Amino acid sequence: MRQSKLFTKTRREAPADEVAKNAQLLVRAGYIHKEMAGVYSYLPFGKKVLEKIEQVVREEMDAIGGQEIRMATLHPSENWKQTGAWDGVDVLFKLQSRTEKEYAIGQSEEEIVTPIAREYVQSYKDLPVAIYQIGQKYRDELRAKSGIMRGREFTMKDMYSFHETQEDFDRFYTLAKESYLKIYERLGLVAKATEASGGAFTKKLSYEFMVLTDAGEDDILYCEHCPYCVNAEISNQKEGDTCTRCNEGALARAKASEVGNIFDLGTKYSNDFSFTYKDKEGKDQFPIMGCFGIGISRLMGVIVESFGDEKGLVWPAAVAPFAVHLVSLGKDNDDVCKAADALYDDLVKAGVEVLYDDRDARAGEKFADSDLLGIPKRIVVGKDAVATGQFEVVDRATGAVEKVSREALLKSDFNSK
Amino acid sequence: MRQSKLFTKTRREAPADEVAKNAQLLVRAGYIHKEMAGVYSYLPFGKKVLEKIEQVVREEMDAIGGQEIRMATLHPSENWKQTGAWDGVDVLFKLQSRTEKEYAIGQSEEEIVTPIAREYVQSYKDLPVAIYQIGQKYRDELRAKSGIMRGREFTMKDMYSFHETQEDFDRFYTLAKESYLKIYERLGLVAKATEASGGAFTKKLSYEFMVLTDAGEDDILYCEHCPYCVNAEISNQKEGDTCTRCNEGALARAKASEVGNIFDLGTKYSNDFSFTYKDKEGKDQFPIMGCFGIGISRLMGVIVESFGDEKGLVWPAAVAPFAVHLVSLGKDNDDVCKAADALYDDLVKAGVEVLYDDRDARAGEKFADSDLLGIPKRIVVGKDAVATGQFEVVDRATGAVEKVSREALLKSDFNSK
Repeated sequence: MRQSKLFTKTRREAPADEVAKNAQLLVRAGYIHKEMAGVYSYLPFGKKVLEKIEQVVREEMDAIGGQEIRMATLHPSENWKQTGAWDGVDVLFKLQSRTEKEYAIGQSEEEIVTPIAREYVQSYKDLPVAIYQIGQKYRDELRAKSGIMRGREFTMKDMYSFHETQEDFDRFYTLAKESYLKIYERLGLVAKATEASGGAFTKKLSYEFMVLTDAGEDDILYCEHCPYCVNAEISNQKEGDTCTRCNEGALARAKASEVGNIFDLGTKYSNDFSFTYKDKEGKDQFPIMGCFGIGISRLMGVIVESFGDEKGLVWPAAVAPFAVHLVSLGKDNDDVCKAADALYDDLVKAGVEVLYDDRDARAGEKFADSDLLGIPKRIVVGKDAVATGQFEVVDRATGAVEKVSREALLKSDFNSK
Repeated sequence: MRQSKLFTKTRREAPADEVAKNAQLLVRAGYIHKEMAGVYSYLPFGKKVLEKIEQVVREEMDAIGGQEIRMATLHPSENWKQTGAWDGVDVLFKLQSRTEKEYAIGQSEEEIVTPIAREYVQSYKDLPVAIYQIGQKYRDELRAKSGIMRGREFTMKDMYSFHETQEDFDRFYTLAKESYLKIYERLGLVAKATEASGGAFTKKLSYEFMVLTDAGEDDILYCEHCPYCVNAEISNQKEGDTCTRCNEGALARAKASEVGNIFDLGTKYSNDFSFTYKDKEGKDQFPIMGCFGIGISRLMGVIVESFGDEKGLVWPAAVAPFAVHLVSLGKDNDDVCKAADALYDDLVKAGVEVLYDDRDARAGEKFADSDLLGIPKRIVVGKDAVATGQFEVVDRATGAVEKVSREALLKSDFNSK
């Protein structure tokens, strides 16, 4: 896209009311707009990043058999009363209609998905089933100071699965755990699965997925040899101890941010909604249920916190709004301008996602904006490039500079993740 | 996709609590699930249809320069108080947080988009700009009996544009009007633009887009010669009268459903939010604003009402969840089954969107389900097809049957809209 057509602009100063690095950089770069504490609109580039993250998550959910739907966000209070969460969940937003009906706004969807599954699952032959959605969630948070990492409105992928037996549940639980680790890896993050308590949902064990980042709110201990990982707060072990699981590796300590969780919900919700199926013997049974969440907008915030530097955003290729930032140093209709126009057209034809800075602005301003926007590769078209046919390609993350011929540029696989 | 993997099922009987044809058919076919009056979840096929409609709308909005964002749904009450709509709009849902802050839930986004535009538009050089989103909206309706055609929660595309002059506004208004008519045409609908009053938003004239359908709630008069069209209720003309615009055609009367509207909002919102830009002379001016809405889920309902028949849904190719319904009459691992499996694989490889009925069910049940699901083309694989190499292709809308060879099937352009 031509940057001259983009309605957003960058700004030099971080907004005074933002303390979180993710919000500061994203607002400065014009990716998001703050509506109030914990509520943001996603502007063209912010929306693109969300969609890239969503697509990675969608592909991995589909790969393990998830079926995507769109659940309602406005919920009848009856469903929430049936599970005890109407009075039991303090972050639940409630409202009343003109006709004095009470509604909840979705902060999770067990109360909606369980009756949906009940509608279609009658027999053991209909199990297992995994249903997910990607959509908005709402939480009545007392404080919201972490930018897009903990919002009153946020985007989440939530999957719910239903099973005949604990064995089948465990099989899927493991599959989902692997799928989660694959998602984080595709997004350029290093994540660990820690065991945690189930919180409000269940007394059973659950997994939290923690991304190693210096900006993390949590401290974790993880084994350098096996996948063992635990929240340092609930562990009586310390850095350097020998791992109690493999008895081989030493425990390392690191800052981390939670970016997903999976819960064994047992039969709580099937019980609450009288959801039974006929087993092989024709007897009524309650399915075992799991819940698998990933905060999409939170993940975007964690990515900014993990990779952003003093110059601005730094996007991993898999989630960058564009693969290439083509920066023209030409003016009006000079040769540089024409060469940049032609290269833009050819890159687009070659299927490369290009942001083209065709604005009438100084080189210094363009480079500063380019650094702030954080697109993985910058191609500079100046007089030198036109004279030599060699284009400067700058890697945003490392700052490494290469000279590349026009032909080689058009053959480069910039979109590869 | 293999139908045996789908978690939804069809049902023979329409739900007792649905009076609208669209909801009856969509629930029976497993496209939607009712949460309460006016609120539905969209199951896998329903979600696919919504996405197809959204994609057509998105392409046409992008084509006229619209920039897509995702606006927040949870709004600070301050914005709504600033425009007078906090107390003036009766369908606005309001809620209170634990900290006693008041929020609105978006039923429209002027209150959010105007401050966003104000943030980035400083000069006449930044105009015009058109910003849109596709997302959920909420209305506190007293009654909701029209299925997905008028919901308390629904999906909408809303675009907002800002202009320097009335001339530039009119230019874009005309462009958007043409774009809307193109959208309806791509969706297989015949739509007319009628002049209407601006309603709650503005005293200026606005356009309503009416789809001709016997299920429509409105009566319109339209000229058979020129584009003139008017709501019969506000007209003192009648069927058969000579058109007062072209003085050539005769007026016809028809039932119609509203599927979109565009408003000239003037400078109301720029005034309310003190949104000014510097004109060429450096003087502060208020931009002129337009609002352009299309109800996405409503449009899905209108399509069902327009084309659905006594056997079930009938989707135009552009919005069908799949292009082809491949129905295998084979059992277990017999030759018919193998032939259907192989044809499914080859169609998928050829890029065709196929739903494959690989279930172990009777032919009569499969055909009834196929009619109910409404996929445009049905390919039947039975013993005859295997023996002769000629496959029966049934057109859902017309019932027309063709015999087509396997080679020709694989070369057919089923996905073409």
